[in-house]
Amino acid sequence: MIRFNCDYSEGAHPKVLEKLVETNMEQTAGYGCDSYCSKAAGLIKSKCGREDIDVHFLVGGTQTNLTVIAAALRPHQGVISADTGHINTHETGAIEACGHKVLALPSADGKLAAGDIKACYEAHASDETREHMVQPKLVYISNPTEVGTIYSREELSAISKVCREKDLFLYLDGARLGYALCAEGNDLDLPALARLCDAFYIGGTKIGALFGEALVLCNDTIKKDFRYMIKQKGGMLAKGRLLGVQFAELFKDELYFEMAGHANKMAMLIKEAFKRNGYSFLVESFTNQQFPIIPDSILLKLKEKFEYSFWVKVSEKASAVRFCTSWATDPGAVGQLTEEIHKYGPVAYEDT
Amino acid sequence: MIRFNCDYSEGAHPKVLEKLVETNMEQTAGYGCDSYCSKAAGLIKSKCGREDIDVHFLVGGTQTNLTVIAAALRPHQGVISADTGHINTHETGAIEACGHKVLALPSADGKLAAGDIKACYEAHASDETREHMVQPKLVYISNPTEVGTIYSREELSAISKVCREKDLFLYLDGARLGYALCAEGNDLDLPALARLCDAFYIGGTKIGALFGEALVLCNDTIKKDFRYMIKQKGGMLAKGRLLGVQFAELFKDELYFEMAGHANKMAMLIKEAFKRNGYSFLVESFTNQQFPIIPDSILLKLKEKFEYSFWVKVSEKASAVRFCTSWATDPGAVGQLTEEIHKYGPVAYEDT
Amino acid sequence: MIRFNCDYSEGAHPKVLEKLVETNMEQTAGYGCDSYCSKAAGLIKSKCGREDIDVHFLVGGTQTNLTVIAAALRPHQGVISADTGHINTHETGAIEACGHKVLALPSADGKLAAGDIKACYEAHASDETREHMVQPKLVYISNPTEVGTIYSREELSAISKVCREKDLFLYLDGARLGYALCAEGNDLDLPALARLCDAFYIGGTKIGALFGEALVLCNDTIKKDFRYMIKQKGGMLAKGRLLGVQFAELFKDELYFEMAGHANKMAMLIKEAFKRNGYSFLVESFTNQQFPIIPDSILLKLKEKFEYSFWVKVSEKASAVRFCTSWATDPGAVGQLTEEIHKYGPVAYEDT
Amino acid sequence: MIRFNCDYSEGAHPKVLEKLVETNMEQTAGYGCDSYCSKAAGLIKSKCGREDIDVHFLVGGTQTNLTVIAAALRPHQGVISADTGHINTHETGAIEACGHKVLALPSADGKLAAGDIKACYEAHASDETREHMVQPKLVYISNPTEVGTIYSREELSAISKVCREKDLFLYLDGARLGYALCAEGNDLDLPALARLCDAFYIGGTKIGALFGEALVLCNDTIKKDFRYMIKQKGGMLAKGRLLGVQFAELFKDELYFEMAGHANKMAMLIKEAFKRNGYSFLVESFTNQQFPIIPDSILLKLKEKFEYSFWVKVSEKASAVRFCTSWATDPGAVGQLTEEIHKYGPVAYEDT
Repeated sequence: MIRFNCDYSEGAHPKVLEKLVETNMEQTAGYGCDSYCSKAAGLIKSKCGREDIDVHFLVGGTQTNLTVIAAALRPHQGVISADTGHINTHETGAIEACGHKVLALPSADGKLAAGDIKACYEAHASDETREHMVQPKLVYISNPTEVGTIYSREELSAISKVCREKDLFLYLDGARLGYALCAEGNDLDLPALARLCDAFYIGGTKIGALFGEALVLCNDTIKKDFRYMIKQKGGMLAKGRLLGVQFAELFKDELYFEMAGHANKMAMLIKEAFKRNGYSFLVESFTNQQFPIIPDSILLKLKEKFEYSFWVKVSEKASAVRFCTSWATDPGAVGQLTEEIHKYGPVAYEDT
Repeated sequence: MIRFNCDYSEGAHPKVLEKLVETNMEQTAGYGCDSYCSKAAGLIKSKCGREDIDVHFLVGGTQTNLTVIAAALRPHQGVISADTGHINTHETGAIEACGHKVLALPSADGKLAAGDIKACYEAHASDETREHMVQPKLVYISNPTEVGTIYSREELSAISKVCREKDLFLYLDGARLGYALCAEGNDLDLPALARLCDAFYIGGTKIGALFGEALVLCNDTIKKDFRYMIKQKGGMLAKGRLLGVQFAELFKDELYFEMAGHANKMAMLIKEAFKRNGYSFLVESFTNQQFPIIPDSILLKLKEKFEYSFWVKVSEKASAVRFCTSWATDPGAVGQLTEEIHKYGPVAYEDT
Repeated sequence: MIRFNCDYSEGAHPKVLEKLVETNMEQTAGYGCDSYCSKAAGLIKSKCGREDIDVHFLVGGTQTNLTVIAAALRPHQGVISADTGHINTHETGAIEACGHKVLALPSADGKLAAGDIKACYEAHASDETREHMVQPKLVYISNPTEVGTIYSREELSAISKVCREKDLFLYLDGARLGYALCAEGNDLDLPALARLCDAFYIGGTKIGALFGEALVLCNDTIKKDFRYMIKQKGGMLAKGRLLGVQFAELFKDELYFEMAGHANKMAMLIKEAFKRNGYSFLVESFTNQQFPIIPDSILLKLKEKFEYSFWVKVSEKASAVRFCTSWATDPGAVGQLTEEIHKYGPVAYEDT
Repeated sequence: MIRFNCDYSEGAHPKVLEKLVETNMEQTAGYGCDSYCSKAAGLIKSKCGREDIDVHFLVGGTQTNLTVIAAALRPHQGVISADTGHINTHETGAIEACGHKVLALPSADGKLAAGDIKACYEAHASDETREHMVQPKLVYISNPTEVGTIYSREELSAISKVCREKDLFLYLDGARLGYALCAEGNDLDLPALARLCDAFYIGGTKIGALFGEALVLCNDTIKKDFRYMIKQKGGMLAKGRLLGVQFAELFKDELYFEMAGHANKMAMLIKEAFKRNGYSFLVESFTNQQFPIIPDSILLKLKEKFEYSFWVKVSEKASAVRFCTSWATDPGAVGQLTEEIHKYGPVAYEDT
């Protein structure tokens, strides 16, 4: 079986692993107060073009999301998110477990628009009833989104502007950030994120690390006492240097972006193969996740050789499924997949 | 100004108040461990036709909802509710503040259907991803709903059946329960609720008490240690007998239902006046809340003499607003309102 | 049986109740946005000598404590309290249920000293480990304390000074505040509290109201969005005017303090009777709660006629128990109790 | 500088690391649903002598503690712990952040006695006031404790007996479990723990793993839906197999215990050196943590070459400090330390 079901099937990029091996017997201070974490934070600050940001390293994405949101909000405040947002659907109510409502807005492509955010804010701000409703205070977006789409600089700027007007925090979940920043058509970069967001994270787990997310805090309110929050929520790794060592390796040169670029390239080959055979897609994605809509009859055949993720049923006899590539995706495996697709020939949805 | 904006503008029904005055200087045990609470609980058990239920008295509805839900759920479990449900929209995230997600289902008339509940349950039960999602465990419904509609015995039985099949608790918010049970077309009663629900409450605040809700617990799991939960959530009234005295008065005869019947009758007069002049309604309600759709030009005139609640804009120039009656509504005031409506003559939406 | 077991055995002072009856059929806005609440708040501001404070009315003490603390703290922050503090012992973990640790300091007389607070703060502020520990952020004291003792102006000033130096909120639980302010030896008053504390409440439930506490917020951080917090925690009374009506009556003249003075006077008679017969006390109290240490043999006889509260076993055969008086305590009942004490004659602890 | 300040200064044991390297490019399912986790769980079940236990792998100790406790308790329930317990002092209120009070009992040696637990339970069970107090429901102990002491089989059996009589869960924090089970005088083993506890964990972070704790659940109530809890609390590692690979290596032979034995042996050398020079100890420890009481004048000299942890000031001029050894402790480094101690000669506390 060849796995295209997710982007965390393998371990770490060999260079990252090598660095862990090389530093294994060094003695360092615990809890992220070591020189590797300092170095990695310094590299990230430099790539973001700002020295006045705080960088923290956490183990995983759900942990990062819940820690940021718990740190940022007072008890009566909530989070605006697309209904497809990871915090809304796939984190077992982690945000609510910290006491906060997720105000989920309908979204066809996984993105929020500035206007939606403004309308949601205003719907909660009427004089008469506002204290009977949750107060929106943080906007959660993902880039790329859970369905692989990305924000343009113009879109993100508009969102950022609304957030600043309405005194909302803007937090960007970058579990797959590298894939967005290396996608065809992308016009955002780290300095832009550091300028437009109050907080965002650069995902390592899904791009070449064994595990780990680099959280960038730009807003002073969220920065304050943040290490207390990491500890309380169980996210403070005793051997914190493991995170520092990995991120230093990912960002000392361009390794992080090289890996993301490779994955996107592999994904485009898969996309192309489906497109050429007439398949529709759930959304148009230029990143490492592709969501072709496939007749059940073909899925039956595909699953004999390939693992993918079921996403959503779109008609009686067809479903959107997810094919994921990663830094580790073997072009040979992609070749087998595309060959298989071509072998089935042009898709016929009419009988579905 | 005549207030039709809510059903808690006045104090208590005179008979209830009189009883509070009469017993004022008696010395009783605190925290609801007095003879008045026992008596009132006994009356309610008897009206429900079951001795094996627990009855607790709390001060308000939000408090009751959050205490029941916190008592019933484990941290990873959530509540299925209509998107219009009070807990979803007008309790400032009280349920989330207790750690639980509200899984809000779209509802045009404020009600949930058995099939919607089943579908929601199943969407969260897939083998592959279920632990990444909240586990639905309690169904929250209101009767009457927030828009005045009511459940039939058949509908509630179907919901109860799904809940038992799927091991979901069924909890009914009865902030205005009397109005439902006395509505034209209603075929439910207290014994039916005590049989079909795991918990429900009989609202006093909105039907004749100074304040107070009588919570009925039918399910042993929720019953266990419930007084701890009341205390922890700040709902244990020191002079608990105030609740017992009031509910004993409401239920020793038919006072509770007489008051609700009066309010419904007043509401039907208002409904009739609007209907005769061609007004549409947001929903068809047979209880004390009416939601006519009214052109802005007419609202401008109405608001000079009457208070109502704004509900929702339905077109450029017309809104649904809420007129509420209560046990205290004066037929004379209703007369003034209906006269005014007739004075405006047949409604013309065309220019809205 | 004559009840001396608590100070909330009866209903409300007749003047308070009369006012509720008199205003019963008036129509007012809900949720505390009525003229009675405004009036009562105005009276309290005036008695505190400050216009820049916020006054909110809540139903009970646990509710008030948890709402203030939840509003004031971020998730990693905790509360310093005497180990005897009500929040630490008798509120079923309500503060922890809001996510906050109570850092309980040993206290023999129910009071905290400025030095204890400072030492606790410093023990949590070491550079190396602080983020592994809760951050102390709010100091909770009660006046009178749970064992009837009171703070002097000098003591409270010293506490306030430490709190301001260390950026700690100072919150005073005044469930029985009137009894403290009317006690022999007291040199504090409402303006002093409003100057020295960040928040405090004036208890009504235990001094003449049916229920209700008037919360005074002096600190802008805690003031912000406080009504959201009241609603979320289930403390927003629909017919909020009931609280306004009562507090307006308590504070329009000196009724609140007259009642407290009466209770203290009755308590001093009881104290005197025990003292004259050689009884020891758990602490020296000048307020309405007295804690004589009584041999079990005498308790057996007392309990045939009087209700008191068991407090703590102090030796094999003797316990401290609590006798409470209130605004409603009948001098005749006190006469019966003191007569009984004198009848037993001088106490002999030697055989205990 | 030679570090004796903690037992997590280095990375992983070389054999463990080698296994991670060896398996790095394999494709496996995520979230712990892979064959390595199955294998490791199987090995642990086998070492515990029970097939009916559940084994989960988490990243760190605080995370494990909070997840177990959140899974086990209802909102009104609390945890009995020694006041020195890690959850009470060094987890930034993580348990309270999940809503639960820690009922901390004084302990001189870090241990709880069966009698203390029973007394605490009974103090919270009085008919009159129990619902005003937290309900004790889980007993938290550490083995070895935070000060290196260990439980005997007799002590643990007595605790287990009280817990079962009183319907309390018994949870053992084994962050350093190996060191306890390999200590001189220990008579406990994994099968005994699996029989006497409801849950416990086998710490990897401090004994040879890069990170990771193996949680053993013996009680069906806690087992239920536990993966939901791991996910919600942010503890579900995407590449879960990293934990499985490590624990399989630690437990396929005796590596785990060999490493712990080495650390204990090194600690005994340090202990012996201090003892021979007349030093007192905070407690008598036979595990990898030693707490000698050292005059400040000597600490000044020691700190030029060695890192240790400050623990507690015991007099004007002397403090208890912690020396930690681990699987990675070099006998040469221990030699340097003991030589240094001998060089200072017999300790003189008199001038302290």
